Amino acid sequence: MTTPTAAPTAAAPATTAELRASVGPLWQALLEHPFPAGLADASLPLERFRYYVTQNLLYLPDYARMLAVGASRSQNGVVLEEYTDALVNIVKVEIPQNERMLAGVVELAGAVPARDGVRAPATVAYTSWLLSIAANGDANDIAAALLPCAWSYGEIARGLVDGAVAHPVYSGWLAFFASGDYAAVVTTLRESFDRELAGMPEAARRRAAEIFLTGCRLERQFWDQGFSGATWSDLS
Amino acid sequence: MTTPTAAPTAAAPATTAELRASVGPLWQALLEHPFPAGLADASLPLERFRYYVTQNLLYLPDYARMLAVGASRSQNGVVLEEYTDALVNIVKVEIPQNERMLAGVVELAGAVPARDGVRAPATVAYTSWLLSIAANGDANDIAAALLPCAWSYGEIARGLVDGAVAHPVYSGWLAFFASGDYAAVVTTLRESFDRELAGMPEAARRRAAEIFLTGCRLERQFWDQGFSGATWSDLS
Amino acid sequence: MTTPTAAPTAAAPATTAELRASVGPLWQALLEHPFPAGLADASLPLERFRYYVTQNLLYLPDYARMLAVGASRSQNGVVLEEYTDALVNIVKVEIPQNERMLAGVVELAGAVPARDGVRAPATVAYTSWLLSIAANGDANDIAAALLPCAWSYGEIARGLVDGAVAHPVYSGWLAFFASGDYAAVVTTLRESFDRELAGMPEAARRRAAEIFLTGCRLERQFWDQGFSGATWSDLS
Amino acid sequence: MTTPTAAPTAAAPATTAELRASVGPLWQALLEHPFPAGLADASLPLERFRYYVTQNLLYLPDYARMLAVGASRSQNGVVLEEYTDALVNIVKVEIPQNERMLAGVVELAGAVPARDGVRAPATVAYTSWLLSIAANGDANDIAAALLPCAWSYGEIARGLVDGAVAHPVYSGWLAFFASGDYAAVVTTLRESFDRELAGMPEAARRRAAEIFLTGCRLERQFWDQGFSGATWSDLS
Repeated sequence: MTTPTAAPTAAAPATTAELRASVGPLWQALLEHPFPAGLADASLPLERFRYYVTQNLLYLPDYARMLAVGASRSQNGVVLEEYTDALVNIVKVEIPQNERMLAGVVELAGAVPARDGVRAPATVAYTSWLLSIAANGDANDIAAALLPCAWSYGEIARGLVDGAVAHPVYSGWLAFFASGDYAAVVTTLRESFDRELAGMPEAARRRAAEIFLTGCRLERQFWDQGFSGATWSDLS
Repeated sequence: MTTPTAAPTAAAPATTAELRASVGPLWQALLEHPFPAGLADASLPLERFRYYVTQNLLYLPDYARMLAVGASRSQNGVVLEEYTDALVNIVKVEIPQNERMLAGVVELAGAVPARDGVRAPATVAYTSWLLSIAANGDANDIAAALLPCAWSYGEIARGLVDGAVAHPVYSGWLAFFASGDYAAVVTTLRESFDRELAGMPEAARRRAAEIFLTGCRLERQFWDQGFSGATWSDLS
Repeated sequence: MTTPTAAPTAAAPATTAELRASVGPLWQALLEHPFPAGLADASLPLERFRYYVTQNLLYLPDYARMLAVGASRSQNGVVLEEYTDALVNIVKVEIPQNERMLAGVVELAGAVPARDGVRAPATVAYTSWLLSIAANGDANDIAAALLPCAWSYGEIARGLVDGAVAHPVYSGWLAFFASGDYAAVVTTLRESFDRELAGMPEAARRRAAEIFLTGCRLERQFWDQGFSGATWSDLS
Repeated sequence: MTTPTAAPTAAAPATTAELRASVGPLWQALLEHPFPAGLADASLPLERFRYYVTQNLLYLPDYARMLAVGASRSQNGVVLEEYTDALVNIVKVEIPQNERMLAGVVELAGAVPARDGVRAPATVAYTSWLLSIAANGDANDIAAALLPCAWSYGEIARGLVDGAVAHPVYSGWLAFFASGDYAAVVTTLRESFDRELAGMPEAARRRAAEIFLTGCRLERQFWDQGFSGATWSDLS
């Protein structure tokens, strides 16, 4: 059951650039979120980064699972191969990179407390949402759902990397997501979805916009959770 | 990727009564939540009930969809028929009953504001979680996921109905969920899952306990959302 | 990976009547198949009908599961309710009716041999195909997949019922599928899909035509299997 | 709805070697099938190999999609990575290798006739079955379903490669599946599933045996189809 989450007066977005524009100031809120800003000026407590990376290592396998569903729903060999490549990137590159960052922060700040290892509210919400889109959507719905995370991370990191304070762990985060390799992954995702969007009917593009908007909201919640260290009220 | 969300020292629950016991004071927190208490003493603002029912009418179709997936994953004809019956109950009884309650509260408090019609954070989290369990779990995982909502509603309502203040809309909510018909639906669900649990291996029962726990947490979040009227920060 | 299974020169079908026309003489081959003809003139050996009904009772639960997936994939409440109704019809009406027919033929011809209870080649092919369409398709793909069976049965039975020879079991088959109640179920399915087809893009209608064609081929294989009594070569 | 397809008197298989033994002479029938034998003695008409490879190129993407679903259903990071590796192997190695073989045979025997490009009966049955197991099963069901194809191909090729007649296309087929690289892929699949089987409850192992048996039957049908050149009766 779809719900209007934005005034459907304008035409539905027909490019990924229009998708981004459609969420208004929410995109800017991601770029300026205090969590990554705290990585750049090294003001973020290590305990919060450790919590964030711990939760991210619960998040990424489900992100990978969504990409696997995208491969399984592909209607042709090109899309099958694109989703396979994206899946490999998460499993073979991003998850190991997060594991290295976790090892780094654990060395500095000690082991992960049991409470931080519980799948937290924003993690449950975001991973469940990815998997539910994967379950009931088509390959284009999945493309809209994976984009907020992948795309915003690159833009956030590139916007912060230049003036960043050197830090034994945080610098690696910024360098990874500001890299040309990472930008190339995002460019591939965007170009592929730009091609699809051009041919999608109005209703499908409107649904893509709604999915993209919800994805941005869940991105923000996930940053908020890392920044505040919040979890379930029965564990607080 | 499963995460221990409760100390796995004790044996995994083998009955639905043990499932309930395994979440500790969280179950009691559902029974004593101020939202349904505010229905019983008629202190809850109508605007909050209208918001809650509006969100519940976004929730219930996804709850029905999870039951439909349960039917589709059934390994035999008995389970197929049980999930079909449960699906029919949501589609033909609970959704219409909520639509009548919404009509009742709209008559008293005016139309639903646009902001309330947006699928709100706890609604996205809970519905997505139900659908993600349905997508990746088996019929027993689904049975564990549907139980916190169905079961707690009956217990909440029966605990409140006797001393409740008469109210043009709230009394109907209490009467519906305190009814013998509703109790019979829950008894069927519990008896069916009790039969399954008895034969499930330890690991599957532990997973059921984890799912049940997360379901109770999401129930609480959903009540909290209705009670506070909160939504996404970009809409606030 | 879609495959052109019919020359894509003509416009894709935009109504269910055009879908039927698009499969050409194959539809007529269903209507004139010797298996149902053998029910009408009572020439079909009871052993073959027993085999057919036994396999049909393996088929119908998977047909129901496909309808359950349709409910789970529904994009709005109307479609959710339509698939729920169709599911209930299979579970509560068609499966019991087949069980009664099986009991009837067993009384006349003896118990089902073990070999007949093995899910046979055309049964595996057809049920797997229904479930695979359900898994990877959307609600409209499912609508196209369920139609050949539902629709052709009504037309077959209505074409044969009038001159049929009285038979203790076969007459019931003809009466059931020639009934007005059954025709009403099919009319609902067709009208619902006619509404969807009218608004579907060309590519989706072409896919629907391909699905409908494969469904008709699998229908024919299923009749052939019942008529010949064939099964796996390692069981023959 | 599961069906006993083998007498459930013996204990359910607990290793992949026991799985293979459980299908009895059917496994030997795969190893001795005249289609691969005709590759080894170069007696198979090129038109039949062209048809087989054309159908195989419709089969392999769905095999890959099943592996993608396996990745999406994985319960931990190890299984996620194993299915990702297996998926990459099909998409990046086996599909390109089949495309090269098709190009080779087309050079010798001319372009693929339109009739051969239609997804044929045994192809529909086998691919649909893989996807239906993927849709409704868990990761272990998928492991049982993918094994007959992967495993038997290696054994078939190794049994034939030594005395094989040199052939511009067929020799490549034998060399590919008889290679150590291919054997290593199968060994990984078997060792992984051996680990799982050891801990699976009786009912799950029995279901695995049933899935493995059906997979072997569908393998045989697929070879039969290639050998006979058969397709749908409305195309014949």
